[in-house]
Amino acid sequence: MAAVTILDVLRTKRDGGELSDEQIHWFIANYTDGTVADEQASALLMAVFFRGMSGRELATWTEAMIDSGVRMDLSGVGRPTVDKHSTGGVGDKISLPLSPLVAACGAAVPQLSGRGLGHTGGTLDKMEAIPGWRPQVSAAEYLALLADPGAVICAASSNLAPADRRMYALRDVTATVESVPLIASSIMSKKIAEGTESLVLDVKFGSGAFLVEEERARELARTMVDLGTANGVRTAALLTDMGTPLGRTAGNALEVAESVEVLAGGGPPDVVELTLALAELMCELAGLDADPAAVLAGGSAMDVWRTMVSAQGGDPDAPLPRAPHVETVAAGADGVLTLLDARSVGEAAWRLGAGRSRKEHPVSASAGVVWRARPGDPVRAGEVLFELHADDPTRIPAAREALEGAWAVGDQAPPPAPLVAARIDGDDR
Amino acid sequence: MAAVTILDVLRTKRDGGELSDEQIHWFIANYTDGTVADEQASALLMAVFFRGMSGRELATWTEAMIDSGVRMDLSGVGRPTVDKHSTGGVGDKISLPLSPLVAACGAAVPQLSGRGLGHTGGTLDKMEAIPGWRPQVSAAEYLALLADPGAVICAASSNLAPADRRMYALRDVTATVESVPLIASSIMSKKIAEGTESLVLDVKFGSGAFLVEEERARELARTMVDLGTANGVRTAALLTDMGTPLGRTAGNALEVAESVEVLAGGGPPDVVELTLALAELMCELAGLDADPAAVLAGGSAMDVWRTMVSAQGGDPDAPLPRAPHVETVAAGADGVLTLLDARSVGEAAWRLGAGRSRKEHPVSASAGVVWRARPGDPVRAGEVLFELHADDPTRIPAAREALEGAWAVGDQAPPPAPLVAARIDGDDR
Repeated sequence: MAAVTILDVLRTKRDGGELSDEQIHWFIANYTDGTVADEQASALLMAVFFRGMSGRELATWTEAMIDSGVRMDLSGVGRPTVDKHSTGGVGDKISLPLSPLVAACGAAVPQLSGRGLGHTGGTLDKMEAIPGWRPQVSAAEYLALLADPGAVICAASSNLAPADRRMYALRDVTATVESVPLIASSIMSKKIAEGTESLVLDVKFGSGAFLVEEERARELARTMVDLGTANGVRTAALLTDMGTPLGRTAGNALEVAESVEVLAGGGPPDVVELTLALAELMCELAGLDADPAAVLAGGSAMDVWRTMVSAQGGDPDAPLPRAPHVETVAAGADGVLTLLDARSVGEAAWRLGAGRSRKEHPVSASAGVVWRARPGDPVRAGEVLFELHADDPTRIPAAREALEGAWAVGDQAPPPAPLVAARIDGDDR
Repeated sequence: MAAVTILDVLRTKRDGGELSDEQIHWFIANYTDGTVADEQASALLMAVFFRGMSGRELATWTEAMIDSGVRMDLSGVGRPTVDKHSTGGVGDKISLPLSPLVAACGAAVPQLSGRGLGHTGGTLDKMEAIPGWRPQVSAAEYLALLADPGAVICAASSNLAPADRRMYALRDVTATVESVPLIASSIMSKKIAEGTESLVLDVKFGSGAFLVEEERARELARTMVDLGTANGVRTAALLTDMGTPLGRTAGNALEVAESVEVLAGGGPPDVVELTLALAELMCELAGLDADPAAVLAGGSAMDVWRTMVSAQGGDPDAPLPRAPHVETVAAGADGVLTLLDARSVGEAAWRLGAGRSRKEHPVSASAGVVWRARPGDPVRAGEVLFELHADDPTRIPAAREALEGAWAVGDQAPPPAPLVAARIDGDDR
């Protein structure tokens, strides 16, 4: 049999053919070890953007990504393991209240998280807004925390799907991120390698989501659920609306504060609703007969949170950083808020310093946007609608500009949009 | 106006939009100076492979490639300038007899040539089979040779469309060569920058051509003719058949010998036919009232050839290198040759050492294939059909293998295929 060459792989995909299992394993292995150059890999990724992948190609590709590193064994933690992954949205702080809540329900939640690019930081950046908290834990600490209190938020080790690490950095600079098979294999290779028994996906659509169109988000959800199921992970997804930002804050410390409100029994209704919907599905997949709403009301999720934060050096009682510069945007007329565009709010938070555009850049812990009204809320002329928080006041005008056209006041409340649009289950259910 | 970013450029092309002139100039300039990374450029080239380019995009892209270097001024050479470019084929040695012939007709022929990859070397590799000949000439020598004897075959200077130099090397390793707008802009940027007033293109189709399908070759020819015309170069193309190899030899010294036969008034009829067809068109575009057939017969083209070779250190009377190992392939039955596949013959020549697979590899001067029969010729059982010439006898079995299925003997001569399928003129004609 002829040896695999990168030019054969490139031409096959470019011309609409199917890559063989041998070609896929060869490519992932040789890209990971540097034999295949970045410029050849990026050309292949762009060809995949245009040609897609068959179900078999995608399964093999994902398997090869997993095989580039280790697959962890969490069977010793003594609890059912269940994780959640969100495709990301504006004000999406759900992991923070959700992980301790599901742990309080009896599961182990192995939240290996990233920093992420975009409007606000990733889950790790949000947690780092807590004074003293550090993302690094040893393998032994990690397993101990999963056993008790049952949740840990930390950075993924570098031997978990290392092919994805290199490939994601490349996709990010070559406009090859927005491809359903590439997104699905990137997310699922890490989650499968992580060793969780069950997985709930929060796949978002709408202006603030990575995939704006509901149909593409549904395709991604279906693809990932099938990949998880095929790899022995009980997987289900919720398709959720990200046209309006979640809660009332976008920004790292601001979102931690909002999460703590939820754990304390308060918080914005939509954040509570989505946290409970995801917690219920996670418990269901994990086979736990728990009532997350009752657990949340009982306060044990807050106890887990405090233990989690302390275990990684954080002080759950320390005041969170606050931005030295806060300016506001007020309504010009009486009426009802008819629009609050997630994408624009995210852009404003990013311009204030809450997010990064390059992986190596720092983020501000305290910068961000607070919106005091949500669509359907009555507003009065002169009433403050937005607070813009910044370390550097020169960033504020650009954030103001991002909010122009992002909201509207009218006579009539818009029809309420359901937050959870659909649930997608695997073939095993 | 927002600054151009590579991600905007990538997303615009990826999603089927048109790149602005500003984006194109920015990309070419920033890729040439290294600001845009190879992996970003290759992703864009793959997106261009899928999306193509509008006429305006292609014109701007080509202009930007030209502007990456200098545009030469040949107005002082005292003769009308006219060049020829072939998209390449098996046994295509036409530049060698053609340049001196057109010079003998009164034009100046600025043949800036390359080495090329593939079945045999480029024009420079063929010329280097002549003992003593060197491709380097100074700018002053170059202009002097164009004035007298009127033709020069030499390497292009590195300041001629340098963007193309870098981009071609990238396309070669990323399977983004076979794109009509990228081929057209690559060829035409160099030819326009070269400063020729007129240009004739020999665009080939058939198994031994770069673009196998006649329709794609026609599209490439039309695209290049339009680009040349729009840039003030009188341009026309012949669409020619490369299903059967040209002449009777493929290999560097072998092709020089065959070219000298043509200049001496002999040579294979198809090589003579194509040489005269291209020479007539070149003279027409250059406004010369010359009869190339008469000039060839009169011997003055041979005089120019001898002067050209000597001017660059070559000895036109020196024996050409001959391969120490020659084996043959014979016919198994009586009949008529019904097939001689150009691609397979090219592959055999390449395996014998006549061509290279990487730019930095050397080629053999003497290796190659001689075919003694052409389709339509009667053959007898045991008659030698092919000679396989090699420096290294261990290369011969693989070349034999390449020829399996490349030829056939039958009862009936195949219908003759016209060598020149069409002529394509610019809008200015």
